[in-house]
Amino acid sequence: MEYRKFDDKIIARIDKGEEILEQVKNIALKENIKLANINALGAVGEFTVGVFKTGEKKYYANEFKGDFEIVSLTGTINTMNGEFYSHLHMSAGDIEGKVFGGHLNKAIVSATCEMIIYVINGEVDRYKDEDIGLNLFKF
Amino acid sequence: MEYRKFDDKIIARIDKGEEILEQVKNIALKENIKLANINALGAVGEFTVGVFKTGEKKYYANEFKGDFEIVSLTGTINTMNGEFYSHLHMSAGDIEGKVFGGHLNKAIVSATCEMIIYVINGEVDRYKDEDIGLNLFKF
Amino acid sequence: MEYRKFDDKIIARIDKGEEILEQVKNIALKENIKLANINALGAVGEFTVGVFKTGEKKYYANEFKGDFEIVSLTGTINTMNGEFYSHLHMSAGDIEGKVFGGHLNKAIVSATCEMIIYVINGEVDRYKDEDIGLNLFKF
Repeated sequence: MEYRKFDDKIIARIDKGEEILEQVKNIALKENIKLANINALGAVGEFTVGVFKTGEKKYYANEFKGDFEIVSLTGTINTMNGEFYSHLHMSAGDIEGKVFGGHLNKAIVSATCEMIIYVINGEVDRYKDEDIGLNLFKF
Repeated sequence: MEYRKFDDKIIARIDKGEEILEQVKNIALKENIKLANINALGAVGEFTVGVFKTGEKKYYANEFKGDFEIVSLTGTINTMNGEFYSHLHMSAGDIEGKVFGGHLNKAIVSATCEMIIYVINGEVDRYKDEDIGLNLFKF
Repeated sequence: MEYRKFDDKIIARIDKGEEILEQVKNIALKENIKLANINALGAVGEFTVGVFKTGEKKYYANEFKGDFEIVSLTGTINTMNGEFYSHLHMSAGDIEGKVFGGHLNKAIVSATCEMIIYVINGEVDRYKDEDIGLNLFKF
């Protein structure tokens, strides 16, 4: 992974074999990012996306392997108890163009991933909402 | 729904049971937004997305219910005759990760929705294009 | 196609019958854009999206025709050897809301396409990576 920062925007290239969530964390820690929005495209060979069953307050995971093109990868970087936190959702098209996606648990880059991080000048923390069963933005 | 503004960016949390298009309108009116781009992720339990049949100049609606993860939610806020106007498209993955989407008519949040609104310092109005059958950007 | 620039953001309307990649190039050349991120929505009647087979280092194309709503269109404008280069991925929902997408080769607008281009104040070139078989960001 390599990146450059231009004012409040970071452009990154995540490389073959690297895991996307780990690289987002690497960039965020190095640049001390407290709040940001992420946008990316690229190709992955393996990814796991979850879907939250609201009734059970539990994530179920779907795993995919093969040649996939990321068609959406969007999310936020912020903090929980002042520490790094990221939340990404992704979808990707398979060899026939069919698209699958959800809450991103893991994605291994197969060719390249091009990411833009819009750093926001502020802070938003999270709290665990027991009713919902998720960590939500605390304002 | 709650939100905070940081310079030209708004970060919002839309809550369980709330409808996304209504909350976008609430934020836009409170903040007097004339032009913006929207990006979001989250989970919805019910949504309706349309597809425009260009031959008939009519939208057809597809309704979905269940546990869905928003994988893309993108759109614009601007004005028509000076009044608030929004245009959003959304896609979401179901329990198996299959993704469905289109022109957003309605989406009820099931857990949370995290939205970033990029406010643009300008104005673009719309006009009804009779040939196309839609309200288009007027420059 | 028509557009307006507001500070570092460009809002464009791409019209019926126009091809999206060509119009992105038109805007980038007129505005002398060296680096940017793109986000768009709209409707297309015909599009071709590729998937890169990493083993063969070759793109395979899937073609779609009909009434489709763009649910994600994201990508980058930058340079290769100093010349314009764009890289877009797109997904779109069909008449039943099923979503298809991948690396964008071609997309013909059927109604309208609303695009936001975030111009970034910097430059990133590309190099041909022989191992991967693609043109990657050079930092």
